[in-house]
Amino acid sequence: MLEFEFINKVLLPLTQNSKLTKKNPSQNLEDDVALIGFNKDSDLIISKDIFIEDVHFLKSDGAQKIASKLLLTNLSDIASSGGKPLYYMMGFTKNSTLDDDFYREFGEALKILQQKYKLFLIGGDTSNSAKLFYSITIFGIVKKNKILSRKNAKNGDLIFVSNSIGEAFLGLDIKLKNLKKLEKYQQKLLDKHFYPQPRIELAQKLISQNLSQCATDISDGLIADLSNICKASKLNAEIYLSQIPFSNETKIYLKNNPNINLIELLSGGDDYELIFAVNPKNLNKINILAKKLKLNLTYIGKFFEKSNYQKNKNFNVFLFPNEQNKSQENLIAISKKGYEHQ
Amino acid sequence: MLEFEFINKVLLPLTQNSKLTKKNPSQNLEDDVALIGFNKDSDLIISKDIFIEDVHFLKSDGAQKIASKLLLTNLSDIASSGGKPLYYMMGFTKNSTLDDDFYREFGEALKILQQKYKLFLIGGDTSNSAKLFYSITIFGIVKKNKILSRKNAKNGDLIFVSNSIGEAFLGLDIKLKNLKKLEKYQQKLLDKHFYPQPRIELAQKLISQNLSQCATDISDGLIADLSNICKASKLNAEIYLSQIPFSNETKIYLKNNPNINLIELLSGGDDYELIFAVNPKNLNKINILAKKLKLNLTYIGKFFEKSNYQKNKNFNVFLFPNEQNKSQENLIAISKKGYEHQ
Repeated sequence: MLEFEFINKVLLPLTQNSKLTKKNPSQNLEDDVALIGFNKDSDLIISKDIFIEDVHFLKSDGAQKIASKLLLTNLSDIASSGGKPLYYMMGFTKNSTLDDDFYREFGEALKILQQKYKLFLIGGDTSNSAKLFYSITIFGIVKKNKILSRKNAKNGDLIFVSNSIGEAFLGLDIKLKNLKKLEKYQQKLLDKHFYPQPRIELAQKLISQNLSQCATDISDGLIADLSNICKASKLNAEIYLSQIPFSNETKIYLKNNPNINLIELLSGGDDYELIFAVNPKNLNKINILAKKLKLNLTYIGKFFEKSNYQKNKNFNVFLFPNEQNKSQENLIAISKKGYEHQ
Repeated sequence: MLEFEFINKVLLPLTQNSKLTKKNPSQNLEDDVALIGFNKDSDLIISKDIFIEDVHFLKSDGAQKIASKLLLTNLSDIASSGGKPLYYMMGFTKNSTLDDDFYREFGEALKILQQKYKLFLIGGDTSNSAKLFYSITIFGIVKKNKILSRKNAKNGDLIFVSNSIGEAFLGLDIKLKNLKKLEKYQQKLLDKHFYPQPRIELAQKLISQNLSQCATDISDGLIADLSNICKASKLNAEIYLSQIPFSNETKIYLKNNPNINLIELLSGGDDYELIFAVNPKNLNKINILAKKLKLNLTYIGKFFEKSNYQKNKNFNVFLFPNEQNKSQENLIAISKKGYEHQ
């Protein structure tokens, strides 16, 4: 059973409207967070992730990096909804291959992030397991009816991304190569793989300045996550390769590793940067915000109604070399599973 | 690192009082649920469990039984706090050894329990994993300041258990023996292993009739879970073997399997029955409630101040053959790790 079949046929029928709040806290499983009414001003948002040895991390990454990535990626789910983190619960496995130092370092890494992001642990569960598994349930708070949601993109909205794209994908490539000594630019890419930056401040400014109602974080690659917005908002998207922001470190790495295709950087990788939708009238305010936050916010494309270009329901993200040259022969249609020329 | 060291040294320092509610939602990790203020009448209670292949279940148990036990044991966490179930989130792994029927049966089993216990799915996460791993985060609601907590037992309170003890332990024994054909009494014990009964109605009546403020469910065995109440309430407990309720099926099984020690039934097993503390003045009301619910509620012992019998800080539960014969030479002190004569 494919992922979308599993979600639509098995999980979605298990959701329903709440008798308590008259709303659907699951948000039809279209966003990464569930939403429960909390008080008259705020909603509680909740996200739950699983984090599995040899799928999401290696034991050899070490306690400090495993714990950091575990909590940072969960913080990113709260960030991308525009929430302020409050609490988390943790499911935690132990086994005899781990020593006391591992557990201590794990706790210390969490403590440092808790202080930085002002949240704390409120419960969980532990078990022994040969294969390590973690699961965090994270809680945040967001102003009522202000949540950033995948379903809120509008026809004509501009597509923005924060910072740059592809570094975490290259960081993973570096990790798996097990290089003995790293150049400085390689270390920076590797750090991006281990320590994503949840864009909490950016998302809260987007809400407080009324600049966006639609965002998601990049956990499965720019294309896949943009495609999820398209699906939830019932729109298509066009993006322009010439506008995608790549860091200098990424450019150096690609030069030294010509086997890595530029499109791979768009189709994979867990940068945990924000993709968000902006009404064109707010373009100037976004540029001011970028300067204030000292964070690149780059216009990479547009949302549009489904009729344009749509030849195949599997495709909702369309890539052009640049905005000026949108001829059909240059069009690359990209699905989550890959890409092909139309 | 032992479990209690891990909790005290690594996890507990990660909890703290909430700025939002001025309370500690973690409840010092002493109960199975975290508690968040919800509205002026109610608190939201939340529990998170992990459920791991070959630790908590076997793949050969099949989708229907795995899904049922997963949700029922989580419902028991809400039940033992006196809560009404509302929602749950689920972390779910898939792999290529499972066919579509597995996922369909899994979903159907959850749907049936959702309807029975009036709760529904609000979110989660899926991933591929060779070893199956599930995690549920379950949400319930409880009247403000009415939660049943491990820390609320009082000196002199009577100790009660619901239904009977040890059936799930024997059910697991039957499962692991892989018998081809089961007698009726064996099937009943096996069902108790797969389908625990969350005591939601009982716990809610204990609250609404002001009969108890302290309960827990039996997930690690009667002794271990009673010991957790003692620790949280800073009390000791004495229980009387002659009063422990065993079912007829249990008695037949023990007769046919003399290798199984009676004490094992007290020290292991996941019956998910309630242990709760009752002020002696309410004894009569408990008997009336038992009749009304058609559920055995059995007086098995008493809580008392730590001075009595306490010779070793590792022991807080003391077993006597019966209430009438509490001579020191008959005393069996039982820790979570085992038992020994004093």
